[in-house]
Amino acid sequence: MYDRLKGFRDFYPEEMAPRREVIDTLESTATRYGFREISTPALERTQMYVDKSGEAIVEELYAFEDKGGREVSLTPELTPTVARMVVAKQQELSKPIKWCSTRPFWRFEQVQQGRFREFYQTNVDVFGSAEPEADAEILAFAADALADLGLTGDDFEFRVSHRDILSGLLAAFDADVDATAAIRAVDKRAKIEQAEYLGLLSDAGLSSEQAERFDDLVARGDLDEIAEFGGEDVRDAVENLRDVLAAAEDFGAREYCNVSLTTARGLDYYTGVVFECFDSTGEISRSVFGGGRYDDLIESFGGQPIPAVGVAPGLAPLSLLCQRAGVWPEEALTTDYYVLTVGDTRDVASRIARDLRASGNVVEVDVSDRSFGAQMGYADSVNAETVVIVGEQDLANDEVTVKDMSSGDQTTTPVEAFPGDRDAPTYDDVV
Amino acid sequence: MYDRLKGFRDFYPEEMAPRREVIDTLESTATRYGFREISTPALERTQMYVDKSGEAIVEELYAFEDKGGREVSLTPELTPTVARMVVAKQQELSKPIKWCSTRPFWRFEQVQQGRFREFYQTNVDVFGSAEPEADAEILAFAADALADLGLTGDDFEFRVSHRDILSGLLAAFDADVDATAAIRAVDKRAKIEQAEYLGLLSDAGLSSEQAERFDDLVARGDLDEIAEFGGEDVRDAVENLRDVLAAAEDFGAREYCNVSLTTARGLDYYTGVVFECFDSTGEISRSVFGGGRYDDLIESFGGQPIPAVGVAPGLAPLSLLCQRAGVWPEEALTTDYYVLTVGDTRDVASRIARDLRASGNVVEVDVSDRSFGAQMGYADSVNAETVVIVGEQDLANDEVTVKDMSSGDQTTTPVEAFPGDRDAPTYDDVV
Repeated sequence: MYDRLKGFRDFYPEEMAPRREVIDTLESTATRYGFREISTPALERTQMYVDKSGEAIVEELYAFEDKGGREVSLTPELTPTVARMVVAKQQELSKPIKWCSTRPFWRFEQVQQGRFREFYQTNVDVFGSAEPEADAEILAFAADALADLGLTGDDFEFRVSHRDILSGLLAAFDADVDATAAIRAVDKRAKIEQAEYLGLLSDAGLSSEQAERFDDLVARGDLDEIAEFGGEDVRDAVENLRDVLAAAEDFGAREYCNVSLTTARGLDYYTGVVFECFDSTGEISRSVFGGGRYDDLIESFGGQPIPAVGVAPGLAPLSLLCQRAGVWPEEALTTDYYVLTVGDTRDVASRIARDLRASGNVVEVDVSDRSFGAQMGYADSVNAETVVIVGEQDLANDEVTVKDMSSGDQTTTPVEAFPGDRDAPTYDDVV
Repeated sequence: MYDRLKGFRDFYPEEMAPRREVIDTLESTATRYGFREISTPALERTQMYVDKSGEAIVEELYAFEDKGGREVSLTPELTPTVARMVVAKQQELSKPIKWCSTRPFWRFEQVQQGRFREFYQTNVDVFGSAEPEADAEILAFAADALADLGLTGDDFEFRVSHRDILSGLLAAFDADVDATAAIRAVDKRAKIEQAEYLGLLSDAGLSSEQAERFDDLVARGDLDEIAEFGGEDVRDAVENLRDVLAAAEDFGAREYCNVSLTTARGLDYYTGVVFECFDSTGEISRSVFGGGRYDDLIESFGGQPIPAVGVAPGLAPLSLLCQRAGVWPEEALTTDYYVLTVGDTRDVASRIARDLRASGNVVEVDVSDRSFGAQMGYADSVNAETVVIVGEQDLANDEVTVKDMSSGDQTTTPVEAFPGDRDAPTYDDVV
């Protein structure tokens, strides 16, 4: 007997059915916005991740040398791959490029609640627009997808921030600041003590007084005050953030957005508006998912500069939110018909099963040569709605029995007329 | 600029759309037969594959040591994983267990036409029935799936064989035969010279005369003659093969089946009926996909004995067959509506887009602040059926323009009544 690897999961049908329902909902929402499905490799060259995130990232990767001597890694995220794909066909692709896909990713990290080594994400990205409408469309997609899952404004909020506001504010201080380090500190703010946080800001180059002032501005998040304190770049960023929120208003997503400049997103490649989805009740303390603008990535991958914005809901944290809110789908196995054979009636039972399947019904038949009782038990276990009993005695009268499994009612009906030209006849139709 | 790994593929939307159509067709057929979707890990312990197939298999695997010191491999096939899953919950799962899933697998092998290092398969298996109806249901699923893809009996055939006929025949000779080696030789028969083939049979323990006689029986495939030549085990196997074909007749798949005892399936774990799907025209010489019975695998994985039969169509060879037959789906990108803005009309355009999306339509809007002409060009590039032009001048008259993109006809309609309570109003509905 073999064991499953730690951090990896088997999904049996009962667990898969609600996941499929959630994936279908996310993809259907993306489709309605005109995002087009792509499919991407599970392996990429390790160098791509090192160049993007530094050597230290290798520790978190399933990285190895393949039999051809290539240093490769299981993909830990989609963004570098789509960047590579955009660069490869940058001229011929019509803009904006709007892509989506749902697939697993892999990271060698500590396994904890809602976090696994193999995890599924639906990635949704727009390439080729620097306009606020693109950011707003990503927010609107995310809001619509959550609404389609049954979540409401009482369940979640988007905390919206802007990278250039943070970096612009830092630049406005008379100090030699490492903006990347300071923004990483902001990203950690909610998870660490205030003293430690201020210490990280000091390490990044701010004096204690400046760190306090910076934190004060960021935490209060008064955009007028911030625009006044900062230089032109900060004012531009504040205006961009307001434009995105105005577009989100038109697109129906504004009501879910709260400005929260302490939301920084840890990943270094974000450039403009960034946001994270949180559980409004606070029961789930970590961010459910996040997204934002990353205008410089394609150029750093060797392409022509092209702006980009995206979001990537993960299935595991999303399931925590849906479960907390009581909207995780209760998808039981469904079976429209079980066609039961008694005696040597397989030819007739098969004809009925095939006719019912041709109309799109889910139809099971006996493949185990089992007794009446065993077949009934199985039909029950797969939640069959209707059982069609094809027995030798009934057939002698040219009839079959149609049984409604919820009421237990049953009746006979002429075999030649079943299902007839009806797509899905039930007990009520033939009684 | 980074390159994609050899044997791995990027699927852009235009390539993904037909693949999605084919996957959906396979899964929809499986669903109608009551197969239930599962989802499985991309990594498993390497030992599982070594135990099943021998040390040599490691050369074909993406095998490596993970950061926790585990020897792991990218899954080269689904069967060992589902065997592990069946064993883990063998008692509680109601029988027959009928599972399906579509996902990528990985093998480090030579890249050639229709064969990649990352390849997609739809696996469909029945566990828990040794009856011929289970084999026949797998054949019927495969035939229905191909028919649903638009293929006919002129396009493909199932070459059906039986492992126990081959091994029983081998045992009937007065020789010490390595049956596994001999069956592997049969599997290679079509690909090598007759002399080499007979040599392999000799290596497996048959005399030249016996090898000729064996080949003669197998190639002719006369089941009566074979039953007479072999012992009771051969007669049982012949009867089982005939029972499977009779069940396939009732299930609607018999017409696609030809008995072909030289079809052996290379994989050692098959035990009973095996089959391979071939291009009837012979234009594609290799098997398109195959399947069969593997009754001993679960026990070898540490479970209680449980019979099993399955099939795994691969997307790449299937696409070759569909393309050869001219039925590979021509799925262009489809867009129901492009809602075009001229001037400051985003609020109204957004309201219309949201209403149309709420009815399930695919709707794109401008996210790039583009000119009328650029928006029209984009609407054309995504094959928008209808363009709704929301212009400042029309809005002054409380109207929008609805343009049919195929005819070029356009008309104005009251903005407040668009889309109104219609799900998908077109030019014809408002003219």
